[in-house]
Amino acid sequence: MQVRKTAIEGLIELIPRVFEDERGHFFESYNKPLFVSLGLPMEFVQDNQSFSVKGVLRGLHMQHEPFAQGKLVRVMSGQVLDVAVDLRPDSPTFGQYETFLLDAKLANMAYIPEGFAHGFVALEDSVFSYKCTNIYHKASESGIIWNDPDLNINWGIANPIVSEKDQELKPLREVFPQAVV
Amino acid sequence: MQVRKTAIEGLIELIPRVFEDERGHFFESYNKPLFVSLGLPMEFVQDNQSFSVKGVLRGLHMQHEPFAQGKLVRVMSGQVLDVAVDLRPDSPTFGQYETFLLDAKLANMAYIPEGFAHGFVALEDSVFSYKCTNIYHKASESGIIWNDPDLNINWGIANPIVSEKDQELKPLREVFPQAVV
Ligand SMILES: Cc1cn([C@H]2C[C@H](O)[C@@H](COP(=O)(O)OP(=O)(O)O[C@H]3OC[C@@H](O)[C@H](O)[C@H]3O)O2)c(=O)[nH]c1=O
Ligand SMILES: Cc1cn([C@H]2C[C@H](O)[C@@H](COP(=O)(O)OP(=O)(O)O[C@H]3OC[C@@H](O)[C@H](O)[C@H]3O)O2)c(=O)[nH]c1=O
Repeated sequence: MQVRKTAIEGLIELIPRVFEDERGHFFESYNKPLFVSLGLPMEFVQDNQSFSVKGVLRGLHMQHEPFAQGKLVRVMSGQVLDVAVDLRPDSPTFGQYETFLLDAKLANMAYIPEGFAHGFVALEDSVFSYKCTNIYHKASESGIIWNDPDLNINWGIANPIVSEKDQELKPLREVFPQAVV
Repeated sequence: MQVRKTAIEGLIELIPRVFEDERGHFFESYNKPLFVSLGLPMEFVQDNQSFSVKGVLRGLHMQHEPFAQGKLVRVMSGQVLDVAVDLRPDSPTFGQYETFLLDAKLANMAYIPEGFAHGFVALEDSVFSYKCTNIYHKASESGIIWNDPDLNINWGIANPIVSEKDQELKPLREVFPQAVV
């Protein structure tokens, strides 16, 4: 497993070792002792899978405490631009984001700690899957509008397909008024 | 989550609820509190993913105690015939097997308890993924030859592509001499 740190503390990219042979290939996408030795959480309690047609943008989502979710994300088919925004109130990189080009052919993943907002845009028809450190809790759902002017994220596509629910998300300066100067 | 019991105690099929919308679809493939309430293990410590071209048969595999693995198996792309053989020494259904037609479009899964041998044949090019209750331990690997005459499994295809390692697996009556009359 290769590990690449980002400029944001705790936010990392992981690239598993893929074994190829005449049948196809095999890899471990999660191994608890190994992941714990890398500083990742002891336990993931929910796995989700979604399919998105090309151009779909899902995000930016998070759950409030005490239901904050760390997410181990990857793509099983297709390619997405994955975005993680640091919204940990005490973080020196609050409001900064990182992108990961997650590609099924690379089998690369990202670990997004609790306290981040997360979203992705499907650059092709894509199957996306992720493991969460906390279960889904509808009443704790929150988020930031994908085209927030302060975050100014470069999603790389012009007119994404966004759910009605996601179109109603608030800008960063409404959700965290104290944090935006 | 729909649950279908089989004739073998503890071996079940699970069909998650899939939410569809204009973007694609979404489902929970694992939810700890729900799965525990269904009698499934408290914890899975490893996730694996393999890609198999059509006609590949992987199996029949198991790990010896104390590294026996319960497996929650599913297909993320394509279709496989999945086979689980009850080799629990004290089971009234010892030596019996069940098959599951796992299809990415159905998102159905099977839970295979510890003490079973497991394998599958890819009916199309398929991405297969599974969660394990115990980590990989090479020295504990064991198995039964896929075309064992006592098990007489109907794999539904004539000349599967089988790894050299799997071609050398032993028949049931050599591995469990006491059990075959
Ligand atoms: C997140 C989630 C959703 N659902 C249901 C609710 C809806 O009926 C349906 C789709 O839910 P959405 O919130 O629209 O899903 P999505 O837009 O894909 O959001 C997800 O994708 C991006 C991720 O960042 C985020 O964790 C997650 O909220 O699935 C569940 O049953 N369990 C869940 O965990
Ligand atoms: C099972 C396993 C394998 N590997 C490595 C060893 C080999 O270099 C490579 C392929 O291993 P195989 O044993 O040939 O994999 P496979 O034939 O796909 O076996 C699997 O598929 C069927 C499953 O029943 C079974 O759990 C599992 O052994 O992956 C790992 O690194 N970790 C693992 O958990």
